[in-house]
Amino acid sequence: MNFVYIPGGGITSPQGFVAGVAQAGIKKTDRYDMALVYSKTPATAAGVYTTNKFLAAPVQISQKHLANGIARGFVVNSGCANACTGREGLENAYLMAAKAAEIIGCMPEEVVVASTGVIGVQLPMPKIIKGIEEAGAAPSREKGQLAAQAIMTTDTCSKEIAIELELGGEKVILGGMAKGSGMIHPNMATMLGFITTDAAISPHCLQAALKEATDLSFNMITVDGDTSTNDMVAVFANGLAGNGEIKDKESSDYKTFARALTEVCIALAKMIAQDGEGATKLIEVKVENAPNNRAARVIAKTIAGSSLVKTAIFGEDANWGRIICAVGYSGVDFNPDSVDVYLGNLPVARDGAGLTFDEEDARKILQEDKIVIKVDMKQGEGQATAWGCDLSYDYVKINAAYRT
Amino acid sequence: MNFVYIPGGGITSPQGFVAGVAQAGIKKTDRYDMALVYSKTPATAAGVYTTNKFLAAPVQISQKHLANGIARGFVVNSGCANACTGREGLENAYLMAAKAAEIIGCMPEEVVVASTGVIGVQLPMPKIIKGIEEAGAAPSREKGQLAAQAIMTTDTCSKEIAIELELGGEKVILGGMAKGSGMIHPNMATMLGFITTDAAISPHCLQAALKEATDLSFNMITVDGDTSTNDMVAVFANGLAGNGEIKDKESSDYKTFARALTEVCIALAKMIAQDGEGATKLIEVKVENAPNNRAARVIAKTIAGSSLVKTAIFGEDANWGRIICAVGYSGVDFNPDSVDVYLGNLPVARDGAGLTFDEEDARKILQEDKIVIKVDMKQGEGQATAWGCDLSYDYVKINAAYRT
Repeated sequence: MNFVYIPGGGITSPQGFVAGVAQAGIKKTDRYDMALVYSKTPATAAGVYTTNKFLAAPVQISQKHLANGIARGFVVNSGCANACTGREGLENAYLMAAKAAEIIGCMPEEVVVASTGVIGVQLPMPKIIKGIEEAGAAPSREKGQLAAQAIMTTDTCSKEIAIELELGGEKVILGGMAKGSGMIHPNMATMLGFITTDAAISPHCLQAALKEATDLSFNMITVDGDTSTNDMVAVFANGLAGNGEIKDKESSDYKTFARALTEVCIALAKMIAQDGEGATKLIEVKVENAPNNRAARVIAKTIAGSSLVKTAIFGEDANWGRIICAVGYSGVDFNPDSVDVYLGNLPVARDGAGLTFDEEDARKILQEDKIVIKVDMKQGEGQATAWGCDLSYDYVKINAAYRT
Repeated sequence: MNFVYIPGGGITSPQGFVAGVAQAGIKKTDRYDMALVYSKTPATAAGVYTTNKFLAAPVQISQKHLANGIARGFVVNSGCANACTGREGLENAYLMAAKAAEIIGCMPEEVVVASTGVIGVQLPMPKIIKGIEEAGAAPSREKGQLAAQAIMTTDTCSKEIAIELELGGEKVILGGMAKGSGMIHPNMATMLGFITTDAAISPHCLQAALKEATDLSFNMITVDGDTSTNDMVAVFANGLAGNGEIKDKESSDYKTFARALTEVCIALAKMIAQDGEGATKLIEVKVENAPNNRAARVIAKTIAGSSLVKTAIFGEDANWGRIICAVGYSGVDFNPDSVDVYLGNLPVARDGAGLTFDEEDARKILQEDKIVIKVDMKQGEGQATAWGCDLSYDYVKINAAYRT
């Protein structure tokens, strides 16, 4: 199935969604650090959250607010994660929702809250409240792009997408934005991802589609193996496209919608991997013919997460032994004498042992911006794709002095 | 219990063990790259091996040879791992044992074989055979230190230790050497560790003591999260000390020996962590009062393995949020509202939330060469200590061009 990409599209491309931004001064720098995005009409919504035991306050509040599958939009700040902040942090997260609700004209419980930045510091609430007021002063569709900028931390570029498809004869749009960069090893969700759509879909179906989509996208990327306290992906659907409401998970409309949502999530996830802290290359790891899909997923993520694979790719060194080593310590049970490894289309190992290959051919493949590693396990039908990035000097530089 | 450290002691400190080395030219550089160490009299022996599914050929051969708990010594080369090398690799590993056995005057099955270096390349057998002959030409106790040098790869210093204790009224010595540096995240054993002793101990008790010791030492260190194909620790005991043979795991002599072996293994493991590729600091993570010991171990290793914790320590940044974040994603079930974190003796978080602390105090602690992170879970009696190192520019530099 082909979806039409909307050039320059993003979080406000679907009908009825608007955005506002503010320079609240949370991080002192002269940039947008707060965004408010919402549907002008009621919407269903769904979320997935980090599995980190230290759930940041905004994640705890958002989980509660999304429990009934109804929400109008979200308010988000960068520069402070509001994580490990105790009762005061929870109260502040709720106050953010309440202030945003005042502007949107809805209940606080219909607002999703997100924060990203340093852990363990309280939000500067006067600035936050003023920022929400500023963001809410003149929301518009045009400000969707600024919203994608406002959620950036060490991201070097904003991450947006919008696609168009037909559902029940009606044109439906999905828009999305995300932020990533460091502390990226999502499990259930990623750092922050937001998706909007004007499709009509029940909360139950929306939650199911989001789960499917994140498992194949945000949950398959890694930058540094650290699963954040603040990871969250939320989707909002306001039904303005006029398609018949999707209520049945077995319907063809559901399947089309879920595939479109997956496409949006994969595109955003790849943008996050490609823009990992200090990254110079996107690494795509395809595992084929594994004993089962779960095994394929674990192997693909283990390879993408290996510091030694990542540094070899940074150095454009065809050190495939590190790839096969990562397959071996993934924890998956398999027959090691039946594993082939490819760099791009170049076979470098067959049946668990090295092949003679042309170093110049390998070098050319490794000089590209996107490196595809393929592992053919030849022992089942499991398959998975994971994405990561190389490990460079700049990752160390960025993280040796992030806080101070 | 206090053991006496023998200054300058190592693998040949126990009675009856000798070493020989050679410059076999495997890595082209002008340095020792091959060692042969053995007991002049029969010995019991035990080994633990990597859990990586791609067991290197020498590990497979050593596992067979140690199955009966009898071995005289080991032959080891650096510069080539003989991993993922198929049937030819297995034959070559056996030929190394056979050649060494010829020199020692024992059966090939009494020789342990180890290799470390690049994966996926066949051993240059003419050089290897010549090297074993050279190493075997004039073995002596004095060459123990050279043996510790010969097994180094990207290690910046050799890793040796010897301690003395009393067992059943007799003076007993344990000696050890190890190599580490990169691809260090042992599971059952570490890169390469060898321990000798003149104690008399049954194969069964020796294996049990080695398992206990490695679980508290080599299995508690991490440099980069990559578990090697070649990890192995082997111990040899020739009984020349004249103590009554240790045969009973409940005996006090067994307990004394096991504690001494653990002390040796911990000392070597810490040397490996401290000399991790590019490392500037040793990180010691103590987890106390966790729900159980297993939970404490997992949490300690997760913190020690976090790229973000490691880069923060490199940057001397008191970013404790990354420590508590790692506790949270460790996969262990616990109450997040009951966790305290200390940098050295400085409390930085209490009950899962941040404390105000003096940044200057923190900076002083982080400027030391050894950084102690303590996490008090306050919810049980589990405890564990893990060791790691910081993540620096040099780790990236070393690994971006290791092979070429």
